[in-house]
Amino acid sequence: MASHSSTLFSSSPTFAPFSSHRLLHSPNLSTVRFSRPIRSKPNLALRCSVSIEKEVPETERPFTFLRDSDDATQSSSSASSVRARFETMIRSVQDSVCEAIEAVEGGPKFKEDVWSRPGGGGGISRVLQDGNVFEKAGVNVSVVYGVMPPEAYRAAKGSASDQKPGPVPFFAAGVSSVLHPKNPFAPTLHFNYRYFETDAPKDVPGAPRQWWFGGGTDFTPAYIFEEDVKHFHSIQKQACDKFDPSFYPRFKKWCDDYFYIKHRDERRGLGGIFFDDLNDYDQEMLLSFATECANSVVPAYIPIVEKRKDTEFTEKHKAWQQLRRGRYVEFNLVYDRGTTFGLKTGGRIESILVSLPLSARWEYDHKPEEGTEEWKLLDACINPKEWI
Amino acid sequence: MASHSSTLFSSSPTFAPFSSHRLLHSPNLSTVRFSRPIRSKPNLALRCSVSIEKEVPETERPFTFLRDSDDATQSSSSASSVRARFETMIRSVQDSVCEAIEAVEGGPKFKEDVWSRPGGGGGISRVLQDGNVFEKAGVNVSVVYGVMPPEAYRAAKGSASDQKPGPVPFFAAGVSSVLHPKNPFAPTLHFNYRYFETDAPKDVPGAPRQWWFGGGTDFTPAYIFEEDVKHFHSIQKQACDKFDPSFYPRFKKWCDDYFYIKHRDERRGLGGIFFDDLNDYDQEMLLSFATECANSVVPAYIPIVEKRKDTEFTEKHKAWQQLRRGRYVEFNLVYDRGTTFGLKTGGRIESILVSLPLSARWEYDHKPEEGTEEWKLLDACINPKEWI
Repeated sequence: MASHSSTLFSSSPTFAPFSSHRLLHSPNLSTVRFSRPIRSKPNLALRCSVSIEKEVPETERPFTFLRDSDDATQSSSSASSVRARFETMIRSVQDSVCEAIEAVEGGPKFKEDVWSRPGGGGGISRVLQDGNVFEKAGVNVSVVYGVMPPEAYRAAKGSASDQKPGPVPFFAAGVSSVLHPKNPFAPTLHFNYRYFETDAPKDVPGAPRQWWFGGGTDFTPAYIFEEDVKHFHSIQKQACDKFDPSFYPRFKKWCDDYFYIKHRDERRGLGGIFFDDLNDYDQEMLLSFATECANSVVPAYIPIVEKRKDTEFTEKHKAWQQLRRGRYVEFNLVYDRGTTFGLKTGGRIESILVSLPLSARWEYDHKPEEGTEEWKLLDACINPKEWI
Repeated sequence: MASHSSTLFSSSPTFAPFSSHRLLHSPNLSTVRFSRPIRSKPNLALRCSVSIEKEVPETERPFTFLRDSDDATQSSSSASSVRARFETMIRSVQDSVCEAIEAVEGGPKFKEDVWSRPGGGGGISRVLQDGNVFEKAGVNVSVVYGVMPPEAYRAAKGSASDQKPGPVPFFAAGVSSVLHPKNPFAPTLHFNYRYFETDAPKDVPGAPRQWWFGGGTDFTPAYIFEEDVKHFHSIQKQACDKFDPSFYPRFKKWCDDYFYIKHRDERRGLGGIFFDDLNDYDQEMLLSFATECANSVVPAYIPIVEKRKDTEFTEKHKAWQQLRRGRYVEFNLVYDRGTTFGLKTGGRIESILVSLPLSARWEYDHKPEEGTEEWKLLDACINPKEWI
């Protein structure tokens, strides 16, 4: 079984079902390094090996990337049902987001790449580049089957056990997207929702199946229109509030903390929501929550793009957007766990780097004059605000 | 003594007197982490703490950044003389390279920032942005005094000792530059030459002073003109051959190995020379060698820029240059030891990132057609060639 890269080994803002501090691909060793922080000791990560097959291109989209044993139509277990329903959800979200983008574009269409793995799993990458409205729009889904080492399973379990299991099979699926419009007054959007599951180890009676959800949606304008930011955050809050009043404030802060460009002491944008390792709620509730969040992308974002896509702008506005795109590149290449580890360990480069803008700019010692619109954006990236 | 960033904590292609796998700045801890591979065990690095003062802006260039005790006019020791002569050399190289660039520009001038540290040391950053010929040209010199931990000194010494010294004072100085022309047929150039020295530990009789040299000059065109590449490499070889016939082949390979974009399996450009930790030759000889290399920058590069700066080009040529600039950004942000550690540990951002181009581009799944000029460049980046 040859080892190879996939779109999966990158977290947000690229196309990953889980953040890659969990899964790091190492193709030369026919392994994926597995690194998962232990919940109670966040700085302690395990690094182990996971076997993954090489992906192959497909000419057509399959009905499902699930193994037969996981297919909801062939199995009635609730666990496989979550796998199947999550795949159905992310593929439906991919379709609806791409449809909405193409409707805004009014002509240009997404280019699609489909791939699979012989032992199960695969993905669909869609990219629309240099369109009428979007500089670059990427929307990907992927499904992975693998085997995680016992150390990783025990970390996921969060408790020590005298009886060590052997390697534990896992399943992962996700949708991820970055949308970079051309008009400097239309914001960039990123979203990523992912589901992870292990089997119950067969050799340790009573050891449970593990699962968790992760993801988020965040908003990166070059100029602030307060009504746009409020609209975007309100839709995120509405999605969260349907499930738990603590979700929006908690995941809003998590987002501000994650998309932090440390060397600039600024966030890459104006945030949104972000969560990871979420399993301390009812599984069905979290599936519904992830679905609600993913389905909120179109109403949260498309009306803003429609409103701003034809706004007149000057070269100065464009140059500022390009400088902010430079910050996007800095965050993704320097800090994003999925991108950095995906690159260093052999992930599928074109899928990982589709998150980068078509073009970006770096000016020496650029400082917006205090009080200008550019300064206001920068100030909001340095000092995250409560928008609603 | 407050801790702060400086231009020094980045290696090539930014402005560092030494590669920062040695020195990693950690401002929050008022320390610089010190990490130096032990010569005989390259994977074993020491990480320790070094105190550095915060830099302050200066309105004028001082005659020297050396402490009085190191100034050649005030001391006759040969060791301080190397420090003084190295500073004189790098400042002279900064002047001559900037003069040559301004002569090519025919009008636009460098912007200069001067800074110093109260306890000695400082730097001069010069940037010319959006000129007639250059998109961005940065030429920096810097001098640092610090204190390295005993573990780092022993690593530098390369041998165990029963008697442990206390913290060991060090000196470092360097010139570093990245020159990005506008015309897609004119190549980008990077060079960096640096000198590092420790004091002899006072508390360990017989323990020696340590010193080493590092640096290199490398060449990154978007299109290959074989006569240009041959000219550039010939000048590097001539500089090397004056000192040791093994230098050019050894440092040419070192350069190909260092500027490697692993996730692309390609080099960022067509190489040149690169060396580090060089101390196994006569110190005076290596000072002369570094001087010869640095003085070779103008004759190796300027005639090529003069020849190509006005070549007619199309949007397609410009887009390909911008894609290669994207690769430059990927190398610098993902792999360059100085840049990555400098950013993550609080280096002076504007000096570190002046190495980035004014603009860059990423297209999804761009593959030059076999046999085209773009393909030839990519092929030479994937399969390094012997140019002379």
